[in-house]
Amino acid sequence: MIQTKGYAVHDTSAKFEPFDFERRDVGPRDILIDIQYAGICHSDIHQAKGEWGNSTYPMVPGHEIVGNVTKVGNAVTKFKVGDIAGIGCFVDSCRECVNCKAGHEQACKVHCCWTYNGTEMDETTMTFGGYSSNYVIDEAYALKVDPTQDLKAVAPLLCAGITTYSPLRRFKVGPGSKVGIVGLGGLGHMGVKLAVSMGAAVTVFSTSPSKEADAKALGAQHFVVSRDADAMAAVAGTLDFILDTVSADHDVNAYLNLLGWEGTMVLVGLPTAPMPISAFSLIFGNHGLAGSGIGGIPETQEMLDYCAEHNITSDIELITPDQIETAYDRTVKSDVRYRFVIDMQNA
Amino acid sequence: MIQTKGYAVHDTSAKFEPFDFERRDVGPRDILIDIQYAGICHSDIHQAKGEWGNSTYPMVPGHEIVGNVTKVGNAVTKFKVGDIAGIGCFVDSCRECVNCKAGHEQACKVHCCWTYNGTEMDETTMTFGGYSSNYVIDEAYALKVDPTQDLKAVAPLLCAGITTYSPLRRFKVGPGSKVGIVGLGGLGHMGVKLAVSMGAAVTVFSTSPSKEADAKALGAQHFVVSRDADAMAAVAGTLDFILDTVSADHDVNAYLNLLGWEGTMVLVGLPTAPMPISAFSLIFGNHGLAGSGIGGIPETQEMLDYCAEHNITSDIELITPDQIETAYDRTVKSDVRYRFVIDMQNA
Repeated sequence: MIQTKGYAVHDTSAKFEPFDFERRDVGPRDILIDIQYAGICHSDIHQAKGEWGNSTYPMVPGHEIVGNVTKVGNAVTKFKVGDIAGIGCFVDSCRECVNCKAGHEQACKVHCCWTYNGTEMDETTMTFGGYSSNYVIDEAYALKVDPTQDLKAVAPLLCAGITTYSPLRRFKVGPGSKVGIVGLGGLGHMGVKLAVSMGAAVTVFSTSPSKEADAKALGAQHFVVSRDADAMAAVAGTLDFILDTVSADHDVNAYLNLLGWEGTMVLVGLPTAPMPISAFSLIFGNHGLAGSGIGGIPETQEMLDYCAEHNITSDIELITPDQIETAYDRTVKSDVRYRFVIDMQNA
Repeated sequence: MIQTKGYAVHDTSAKFEPFDFERRDVGPRDILIDIQYAGICHSDIHQAKGEWGNSTYPMVPGHEIVGNVTKVGNAVTKFKVGDIAGIGCFVDSCRECVNCKAGHEQACKVHCCWTYNGTEMDETTMTFGGYSSNYVIDEAYALKVDPTQDLKAVAPLLCAGITTYSPLRRFKVGPGSKVGIVGLGGLGHMGVKLAVSMGAAVTVFSTSPSKEADAKALGAQHFVVSRDADAMAAVAGTLDFILDTVSADHDVNAYLNLLGWEGTMVLVGLPTAPMPISAFSLIFGNHGLAGSGIGGIPETQEMLDYCAEHNITSDIELITPDQIETAYDRTVKSDVRYRFVIDMQNA
């Protein structure tokens, strides 16, 4: 077994403590990754605090992982020692079901092995995430990372990047698309960068007027304070696509009415209360409301390659492991531009 | 002016009385249609009774119209005297806005002239519908009807047909598609016929077990009583597309969970209360919920041509004008298989 040092929470108080545990030996198809950087996703906080009701402890969060490949199994073909590899939200799945075969392993109909707070394919062995010194993963579920990029700023692409990239591609955002991005946080700022890189004219919607300068700096053409009814009315019926990154409860109908003919709004945040949707908001204008969550391995690799080609990374604040709790508190208050990343190299 | 005999309601009591009125003379681009058949759409009932709050009286309902062309203006090219023509939900629009130019005249950004309970392009002259002896319409907004079809059964295609055809096409239903149709009424029975004709495997969902035989006779492969939780669970995650034709308030999430990966459910009914939609129902499975209403002139013509080619018409009960009120009562009770059509020839 491989000795691993990590940082774990042991109950919903979400106090982080050093935690030693073991990972499996490197099998024929496995690679060992020495973790350099682990991003902090808002979902880490929900899970660490048990807010989604499915938490198991001890828990080592972290599913935005970048590191060095330091060992490879004898059947490994995709990686060699010295490569840079990434791990996202899951590390294995059945590989046989219709969704796995279509490259949507995150929707595996048998068992998706989440990177942490999950279990391996035996459905028993707990998985521990990226707030740790290393990870052993089947090469088929690891991503290739361009070593010339700023690796600490690549880490958040493994969740925030693919979560925003996937719906932009699915709904064919491209040159000339009029795109709205609702919320300018970890997901929203990636949505702006990606949509702008695809040639879209982006309008950012935020409750905070103070975010206008950042939105413009990220490439947005327009900025609307969503509490300003006149400003909202001025863009009614004009957008081809809206990416809604807000997890707090909010009025979705107000945004549906901003869509043009057959426009679609995609939710990537997870408001907990049911959203009251008016059938009129959908039927008049042939509007669509869709959901989207992360992406499969092929699309995640496509996203990383795209970001390398277009020089896109996340805006981050680098912290040390002793700062995780402070970072959680600041993330909850939206006091981060735009993603905390833990430097695991000297942990 | 042209003298027209019709049947009008004068207030929300929705009592029909003979009503004489005038239509404009046939202009250079107009055609005069002697109306043979007018279908009764459930929306006629809502409007006649003032249930949508936008009714103006006197009102002559009817937007599923088929008749003989008896006069054409001197600039008319699409029709000649003796042709069969149809009229759907609207009779004019601005022709210049982005939606009109794209063939979505029903979403005209300037003014859509609804066939009744609307106004002409002057936004003043009231429009009167198909429960009448004739209609004068610009040829650009009239549809060509195959004279060899059963014309009384073609009339409902002008609304119920296009309303179901359009979303089936938009979401690319075709051979092998697994399609759910929710509700087996005027819209639902057309949805089944059309989806089956496109090669889909159709499952009908209904609260009424008694409709199974009809569903199968229309070509459905499967029938599920929607109140049977076990039967619903058995099809979870299996459907590519669901067409929801129910206007009564109902739990939409229960159907979203039946969709497979990136499956879409389309609402064509108009429940009046906001629908509580769970973000989880959308995000897990990358599901979509969209709205759809009628179709533009190009797509309506495409639908009529498709139905002629595939020998598809509506199942109807033919009535005389003195039976309209009885037909309204029976339609409200869903006691019709599947559309009432008024014989206007001897009215």
